[in-house]
Amino acid sequence: MSTYRPPLADMEFALFDVLGYEKHCSTFGEDPLDREMTMTLLGEFGKLCEEVVAPLNRSGDEEGCTLRDGSVHTPAGFDEAYQQYIAGGWFSLPCDPTYGGQGLPASLGKISAELLSTANMGFALYTSATPGAITTLSTYGTPQQRALYESRLISGEWNSTMCLTEPHCGTDLGMLRTKADPQADGSYRITGTKIFITGGDHELTPNIVHLVLARLPDAPAGTKGISLFIVPKVLCEDEGSLGERNGVSCGAIEKKMGVKASATCVMNFDGAVGHLLGEPNRGLNAMFTFINASRISAALQGVAHAELGYQKSLAYAKERLQMRSLSGPKNPDGPADPIIVHPDVRRMLLTQKAFAEGNRLLNYYLAMQLDIAKEGQDENSRRTAVRRLDLLTPIAKAFATECGVESANLAIQCFGGHGYIREWGVEQNLRDARIATIYEGTTGVQALDLLGRKVLAGHGPVLGELLDEIDAFANTVIAQATDYSSWGKQLTALTNDWRLLTQTIGARAAANAEEVGAASVSYLMFAGYTLLAYLWARSAVAATELSKLENGDSNFINGKLATARFYFDHLLPRIEGYKASIENGAGSMMEMGIEAF
Amino acid sequence: MSTYRPPLADMEFALFDVLGYEKHCSTFGEDPLDREMTMTLLGEFGKLCEEVVAPLNRSGDEEGCTLRDGSVHTPAGFDEAYQQYIAGGWFSLPCDPTYGGQGLPASLGKISAELLSTANMGFALYTSATPGAITTLSTYGTPQQRALYESRLISGEWNSTMCLTEPHCGTDLGMLRTKADPQADGSYRITGTKIFITGGDHELTPNIVHLVLARLPDAPAGTKGISLFIVPKVLCEDEGSLGERNGVSCGAIEKKMGVKASATCVMNFDGAVGHLLGEPNRGLNAMFTFINASRISAALQGVAHAELGYQKSLAYAKERLQMRSLSGPKNPDGPADPIIVHPDVRRMLLTQKAFAEGNRLLNYYLAMQLDIAKEGQDENSRRTAVRRLDLLTPIAKAFATECGVESANLAIQCFGGHGYIREWGVEQNLRDARIATIYEGTTGVQALDLLGRKVLAGHGPVLGELLDEIDAFANTVIAQATDYSSWGKQLTALTNDWRLLTQTIGARAAANAEEVGAASVSYLMFAGYTLLAYLWARSAVAATELSKLENGDSNFINGKLATARFYFDHLLPRIEGYKASIENGAGSMMEMGIEAF
Repeated sequence: MSTYRPPLADMEFALFDVLGYEKHCSTFGEDPLDREMTMTLLGEFGKLCEEVVAPLNRSGDEEGCTLRDGSVHTPAGFDEAYQQYIAGGWFSLPCDPTYGGQGLPASLGKISAELLSTANMGFALYTSATPGAITTLSTYGTPQQRALYESRLISGEWNSTMCLTEPHCGTDLGMLRTKADPQADGSYRITGTKIFITGGDHELTPNIVHLVLARLPDAPAGTKGISLFIVPKVLCEDEGSLGERNGVSCGAIEKKMGVKASATCVMNFDGAVGHLLGEPNRGLNAMFTFINASRISAALQGVAHAELGYQKSLAYAKERLQMRSLSGPKNPDGPADPIIVHPDVRRMLLTQKAFAEGNRLLNYYLAMQLDIAKEGQDENSRRTAVRRLDLLTPIAKAFATECGVESANLAIQCFGGHGYIREWGVEQNLRDARIATIYEGTTGVQALDLLGRKVLAGHGPVLGELLDEIDAFANTVIAQATDYSSWGKQLTALTNDWRLLTQTIGARAAANAEEVGAASVSYLMFAGYTLLAYLWARSAVAATELSKLENGDSNFINGKLATARFYFDHLLPRIEGYKASIENGAGSMMEMGIEAF
Repeated sequence: MSTYRPPLADMEFALFDVLGYEKHCSTFGEDPLDREMTMTLLGEFGKLCEEVVAPLNRSGDEEGCTLRDGSVHTPAGFDEAYQQYIAGGWFSLPCDPTYGGQGLPASLGKISAELLSTANMGFALYTSATPGAITTLSTYGTPQQRALYESRLISGEWNSTMCLTEPHCGTDLGMLRTKADPQADGSYRITGTKIFITGGDHELTPNIVHLVLARLPDAPAGTKGISLFIVPKVLCEDEGSLGERNGVSCGAIEKKMGVKASATCVMNFDGAVGHLLGEPNRGLNAMFTFINASRISAALQGVAHAELGYQKSLAYAKERLQMRSLSGPKNPDGPADPIIVHPDVRRMLLTQKAFAEGNRLLNYYLAMQLDIAKEGQDENSRRTAVRRLDLLTPIAKAFATECGVESANLAIQCFGGHGYIREWGVEQNLRDARIATIYEGTTGVQALDLLGRKVLAGHGPVLGELLDEIDAFANTVIAQATDYSSWGKQLTALTNDWRLLTQTIGARAAANAEEVGAASVSYLMFAGYTLLAYLWARSAVAATELSKLENGDSNFINGKLATARFYFDHLLPRIEGYKASIENGAGSMMEMGIEAF
């Protein structure tokens, strides 16, 4: 039961009815995407996800990956599915036509990735590093490097990884130890151990392009002495022919809580041949091109986990008969009512729906900023988009993935005891979802980035513009005196609170830097709930517009309106807890001596 | 690293310094427990948990249970550990001396179970059904039944299960179908399938006493036609000698998210010989004796999961070096600071500590009410204790287990990527913890019980007494004008809110029964946060008293005081979200048609 269904109607509504994607796309390229073309493309990709990829989700979890004779083998069916994925050209959508790409907007790559993650998170991870690697190569690669590597990543012929973490350092990359020794021929020999490498080895492609952070012999200590290297699994000539194995191997596959179909590898580099990508000692900058793109992808995984939890819970809640409605039987001919009649089950379903669809809006908005940042019509709009991405990416990444975990957790609760049994797949969804608040920077790291490196360090005006935009929307709905005017007033109060909280923290931080860390996660969650309130209010306005059309789907429209009301009534109030926690400051968080824990 | 340590000092503080356990015990029995005796006993049991049971926690999860030739085999080491457990007489602590028990207070049985659950949840489940079965037999059993079964459960020679759930009904037991056919000799033949049976089969004991809900041929429909039967795995004579296998067998072991060392079985009853326990058609009443006792045990599992998450997180946070403190290096000679210096890591640790220790207080308080309900000095005090148990058990069960899941989840976050890897054991803690908000009645079921069956149905005065008690405490601390007087004022505001919210829901429910369900979980969470505020304030007062003693452990005392402040500053404010959700009512939760989901 409850097979995965691509939520195309919800995606179309978010993109076109709320966010104006058609107008947005009209400014890019000679033959811009319109509504029909976009939905045809997403429909085709959704079909692959539903029919080929989703059926491998549970079997992939059960089977996992195996390391035999030094090679990683993925679960049954993954190779065939991967070949279909690359045959469809799905890596190439947003890529440079010079190297085989289709030149479509970057946003489309992100949006399609949501579908894949919902269908099968373990499988999706084999496609997750390549887009970032392509972006990094396109920004920092020499023409030869681009021709050799980028074109083969775009076609999917080769695959990629991102090798940052070492056993003693993850967040704190300044401590990394992997060495790069320069050779006479201009190449380098890379030596060290990397852990948690997603898709570090597998048999899906004949070569894997590792992007590896390492230190040159004369490098300064800390993060300013890190360089980025291309290290292919198999040595290759400029025209792409494969030679001997390079000195890089998988030492072990990690045993993880979830995403078991994804090979998370310990990778040993033993004097492996590498090539510098970008400038020496500027590797972390180059890698951040990669990481920022990956953070939006991880955020969309949060959407995917919430969506999957919702779809499974909804199907079960309609079928499972248990107890009678408190207001009288709703299924009088059956032995009991379907559990969707019970208010608390609806509370859980509506929470999942509000999180999935609200965070989808936030992330599609971000994906559209990626388009503008890359190809906006003028310097000013490009710069504005970059700065807004800087501000919003940590919020979207942390908030959407926290919501994904909560929704996956609620799915287990909707199923009761059956949710704890593996066959229904909802416990797998929680296990798979759980990594998303950790990798690509934990929620705590995102929160410090937002507050410490962005809001309090130069991005105040960017935040100001965003809050002004919300205020302008709020004023419009207040002026229209519709049912939503109370939401407009709430939004105005929220933006006011947001400004005041920012000032409060800023003032306190001048005296005590710990105030930033103490407030950071609550501040990020405050921001996330406020942004979703804004976007749900916009959804309600858009749904109301649709209701005026003759062919509007009234169930669909009512679903959007009721979910918006539910969000304002039952989820947004959580914001008071975050606000009070911020106002109460760092005192009781920091006063306790370590020995008193 | 981070092996389990029994939190004896915290337990002693909770029992004796906050809750007055010594005075409480002085009223029971001829040789009442004092502080030293209690802590010696718990220390001895803690040693068994730490040295014998905890080392089997991870291996038990990895190995799981196997069904071979119709018999369930538990993981390596479980049999030896179980024999040590029963050799220590740990089942017998709170039991009737007539049947081999030690006659100690019921509370001690619950409190010791917390230690076992923290050490190894999978193992603890093999001891979880027996205390409830003993209580049920002692209440409803004939002298022969007690002599045959109860004495062997008290000694641990035999083990027990509780067979309620069927594939089509869990919460809704009125639908159950298992049949009981009367035989000429006064016995019954039981036929049906039960699922989710904890310890349904295993080789730890030569016999297993199943307590099974089934229907007599002439039984009324629904919950008023259910009877309770004793169905031994192996048929036995009155003197206990074992005969042939009964017609009951394990059909399968469920594949679960966690507690994999615990055999959760599908049990087939094929005309198995059973004996009526208690009155015909009154089985659900008898089973509720069992269930209520089990709910407090499940609540203490929530404490255990929070405690384990805290212990593991704390050990890691002190050792793991990553980044520098925002206020300057705290470990200048090392490559980075231990992550416990970072405010957000402290936020997570203090949340775990506040939940573990706060819920421990709540549940020890409940366990003490069990003593009074059973052996209170007069009818009035016994009745008061029963009614307070009725009111508080659903709150304690749901709130403590929700906090257990949150704390286990935070442990993964504290560990970052390493938390997602199985070897550290924190992902196992979340997987193990996750069942606790489901079994023995889900959080939603507890919330409806609290609000619908208790508060709004006759227990209003019981709630009133509790709130008066909190007000009296609040007035005392306000009058003392100490640092805590602001907490006193907050508590007074909370009890006022609690009364008003109850009135609001009650008034709305008269017009629309769905208002009860819509408010129920938020109401329960509001209650839980308020009770923990009260108990943390009492802890602070108790810790302050300790600080006046010459030999007070200042680190320990400061830990209690700072955690209480943290609770009021950063966790209690969440209550505003629940309050607003209740006030916003059922409207947006119920208005959406099923087809609009």
